[in-house]
Amino acid sequence: MALTIYGIAASRAIRPLWAAEELGLPYRHVPWHYNGPETREPAYLAINPNGTVPAIDDGGLLLFESLAITLHLAQTRPAGGLWSETPEGVAGLYQWTLWAATEIEPLARQWFHHTSFLPPEQRIESLATAALDKLQARLAVLERHLAGREWLVGERFSVADLNLAAVLQRLDALGRGELPHTRAWHQRCLARPAAQRAWALRQAKA
Amino acid sequence: MALTIYGIAASRAIRPLWAAEELGLPYRHVPWHYNGPETREPAYLAINPNGTVPAIDDGGLLLFESLAITLHLAQTRPAGGLWSETPEGVAGLYQWTLWAATEIEPLARQWFHHTSFLPPEQRIESLATAALDKLQARLAVLERHLAGREWLVGERFSVADLNLAAVLQRLDALGRGELPHTRAWHQRCLARPAAQRAWALRQAKA
Repeated sequence: MALTIYGIAASRAIRPLWAAEELGLPYRHVPWHYNGPETREPAYLAINPNGTVPAIDDGGLLLFESLAITLHLAQTRPAGGLWSETPEGVAGLYQWTLWAATEIEPLARQWFHHTSFLPPEQRIESLATAALDKLQARLAVLERHLAGREWLVGERFSVADLNLAAVLQRLDALGRGELPHTRAWHQRCLARPAAQRAWALRQAKA
Repeated sequence: MALTIYGIAASRAIRPLWAAEELGLPYRHVPWHYNGPETREPAYLAINPNGTVPAIDDGGLLLFESLAITLHLAQTRPAGGLWSETPEGVAGLYQWTLWAATEIEPLARQWFHHTSFLPPEQRIESLATAALDKLQARLAVLERHLAGREWLVGERFSVADLNLAAVLQRLDALGRGELPHTRAWHQRCLARPAAQRAWALRQAKA
């Protein structure tokens, strides 16, 4: 079944790109930009009515929301090793994916918008600082969880690690203090050959 | 297997409470408040290291993140009818759950904080307005999706409807304009006997 991944690699499309690389899936990458123009066209809005990236066409199955896409790819290709075989494990995949989406991403985004993404005149420094302040308590939870374990769920790298590591891609800037377990885990994730191949797509299109 | 749901019903604990009611699961409700003191105690932090609500103990399986909990409950009790039997359907459950978490909840929360939740002197009216402005484009996507269909995924109520309807609990205030399909869908969701039973817990503890 043909898999197409829409969205420039320098966007949340990095998540499905990384997942496809981990799973060894052949795919076609359509590196459209989140600002358009292609993502504003009716043909794309029929794939993703939000006009955002990423979205995928997985043999006719159309899907948006980057973290939903990685869950779907991991679950439907269990031989790829990103899913779990136990109810406890699957629950953990859901938990850390939703934790990434709910507890980390809005703050990481707020910080990034008000330090880099928005035009300088629209940035509000106090909002960037407030986001960093709030993130520290949450990263402390992650740090305690990763003490004495290598991966978020079970004994191997999973889609939970992929999702959270990608949401935390700017961990160097987001985390204060040493956070040794979190930083080592993050480096383990990003050093994976599949991650390297996915991130190389950012350089190629930059 | 015994199921315990932690968290006052007037919190995101309404989501697992509603799911348990839909699935016909017996459960013990521990209505602790998100402000503590019980949720700051080591015994609770061992269940949910974030110190937030909700969390569950499902026969020894500990889980936090409300939307992960509802996915877990729905998936492990497929006879309850909230899950899907097809890969396309399951992908849709993930998609709309993550869409609720990513596209709706941060804005709904920003609006609520700056109109009701924060002490009046900390509220910033422009942030409430900005949240409402952004929400309209997203609700327009939902409105188009629900035109001509009764439920978000497939032909029946699912955990996707439960998750998004709960995240949109303040739809009356969040949605401008008529949004006829969205409002009718939301009423269909909240009129369900299981939803009524869950929401009644808010009155009981108020």
